[in-house]
Amino acid sequence: MAYPENFTGIAVVDNKDYTYPKKVDYAPKTFGDHDIDIKVECCGVCGSDHHFAKGAWGETPKPTVLGHEIIGEIVKVGPKCDKGLKVGDRVGVGAQAFSCLKCERCKDDNEQYCRQAVWTVSTPYADGYASKGGFGNYVRLHEHFAAKIPENLKSQEIAPLLCGGITVYSPLLRNGCGPGKKVGIVGIGGIGHMGIMIAKAMGAEVFAISRSSAKKADALKLGADHYIATKEEPDWAKTYDDTLDLVVVCAGSLTDIDFNALPTVMKVNGKIVSIAAPDASEKLTLSPIGLMGVSISNSAIGSMKEVDQLLKLASEKNIKPWIETVPMSEEGLGEVFARMDKGDVKYRFTMTDYDKVF
Amino acid sequence: MAYPENFTGIAVVDNKDYTYPKKVDYAPKTFGDHDIDIKVECCGVCGSDHHFAKGAWGETPKPTVLGHEIIGEIVKVGPKCDKGLKVGDRVGVGAQAFSCLKCERCKDDNEQYCRQAVWTVSTPYADGYASKGGFGNYVRLHEHFAAKIPENLKSQEIAPLLCGGITVYSPLLRNGCGPGKKVGIVGIGGIGHMGIMIAKAMGAEVFAISRSSAKKADALKLGADHYIATKEEPDWAKTYDDTLDLVVVCAGSLTDIDFNALPTVMKVNGKIVSIAAPDASEKLTLSPIGLMGVSISNSAIGSMKEVDQLLKLASEKNIKPWIETVPMSEEGLGEVFARMDKGDVKYRFTMTDYDKVF
Repeated sequence: MAYPENFTGIAVVDNKDYTYPKKVDYAPKTFGDHDIDIKVECCGVCGSDHHFAKGAWGETPKPTVLGHEIIGEIVKVGPKCDKGLKVGDRVGVGAQAFSCLKCERCKDDNEQYCRQAVWTVSTPYADGYASKGGFGNYVRLHEHFAAKIPENLKSQEIAPLLCGGITVYSPLLRNGCGPGKKVGIVGIGGIGHMGIMIAKAMGAEVFAISRSSAKKADALKLGADHYIATKEEPDWAKTYDDTLDLVVVCAGSLTDIDFNALPTVMKVNGKIVSIAAPDASEKLTLSPIGLMGVSISNSAIGSMKEVDQLLKLASEKNIKPWIETVPMSEEGLGEVFARMDKGDVKYRFTMTDYDKVF
Repeated sequence: MAYPENFTGIAVVDNKDYTYPKKVDYAPKTFGDHDIDIKVECCGVCGSDHHFAKGAWGETPKPTVLGHEIIGEIVKVGPKCDKGLKVGDRVGVGAQAFSCLKCERCKDDNEQYCRQAVWTVSTPYADGYASKGGFGNYVRLHEHFAAKIPENLKSQEIAPLLCGGITVYSPLLRNGCGPGKKVGIVGIGGIGHMGIMIAKAMGAEVFAISRSSAKKADALKLGADHYIATKEEPDWAKTYDDTLDLVVVCAGSLTDIDFNALPTVMKVNGKIVSIAAPDASEKLTLSPIGLMGVSISNSAIGSMKEVDQLLKLASEKNIKPWIETVPMSEEGLGEVFARMDKGDVKYRFTMTDYDKVF
């Protein structure tokens, strides 16, 4: 084999010292009949990697090899692989590494809600092995969760679509985003900035909604048709009364939503969808009256069918997330986490230059 | 004219003494060009009448003539009426008496969400006149809010469809209730018992959900295919994991929902809709994680287009709410309110025999 038995990654070895990740070797999961190995070319850094690194969702299994916006080349395919992927293909992997593929949810292209889902990082498989992601030289996972990348897309630019992008695309798609629809994106950060581009590419009239006007110029450049700075326009809810068909909340949490105001700018049967992965302990308190004719929900990533659709859309409509590349190394990844602590991201990091460190 | 200038009703004259309503005369609203007068034949008693009577939503304008599940005969039509209704027609009126009919919401058959909506009882019109309902000999309101009743339906049986029935029908219709769908009705009371019948008539597989098994026999007789007693089946959420497409909560409030359990029995993209009219001060506290792939919303009554559809469905599928008739009088209505205080209703009251009291 052209690559080692063990993989090598830049891993969090102590959640307290997450800004000082270390280069470590580790055994990959047992190779399954439907597994593939991918040599990683580059990998986006998602807010949830940062959360895992800090131990915000609890202590993580060590070494913690994060990274789940992976682009790479297939170097091995399992004996029963039948999805049509082959050695040499450039593929992308997002936040999910496994599902049963047999239950109703999986059969209905809702594998992200499968009760047996295993995420790409820090999640135990049935045998107890904790999944390890794209901040290493190789990843191994079920072929179903790898998507072929259209030729005209640049790896480092579209890596963030694999988790952040699909996370906002799926609720846009499932809730009717398209021509003639007025769609709000609340929170113009890593995911929100992709939300603007994607909703625009889908044909909607896009309203970027943020607290201040600090991101106005960026939002308009990203394709927003309107910009609402809620803290600077006290009458914003009146101004935009009965306007929006759909809002995707890309802020940290549903609890950030002003439920006295946001529902009033929704049309009847309007949908407010949050893409946050809230803590189980987090509580949302709202007035049910605010939900009169308006629904709220939470959405988790997307199906692989939707990933394929998003990559096709990106290929056709030239969607390019705004990224900053950082060469992969202990120092590079540590600095990225430190900058994420400060919110110093415009708008997404992609770790690159894997050949130089591994 | 064959009827007096003033109308006569059995009215709440003091919210503290709501179980002692009095027979009073009162001036109707000014007759508008699109108004009709209806001689009331009978009128259902809705939970919200009881709330208004008690002053649970605040002191009501006096005299408080409640009743908004009205069946009667048109005795006068305004000079500009153009809906096709004529003197002698038997019509039904529900909870709404007015909307602007010009805004986008009205044009989209969402007039129940019109910003200028006036409810049938205890709501001020633009000129300050407080609307008065069907616990009187006549009602006067805009023609748009009267629906022609199919011949084969019995007035006293289908009066409750005009508010309670449409309130559960609209969210069922808007959220895909029909053949192949698994639909839960939470709360088997006045509205819930109609919910079971209506969801069944629409072709769904119906799951009646209540705390105890006290209403099991009734629910099955009403057409439920399954019955879940949540307090008596500790594992109910596991038993029905990933089962329901839609749940309409007919309990008093969204805050009654166990958001640790109910979302887990929903399929992906499942919808939980409450039909409660919550107080503005009421707060709902839930874990956003519970809304992963599941939405919640509140729904208010229905459009007149939907009322016509429901009456057609009732006519074709023989939907008959379970009612107890009570002759209209001071004592009769007072006793009805007193019994509603105790929850002693199976499942809806209709006030009848208007000719004997007015």
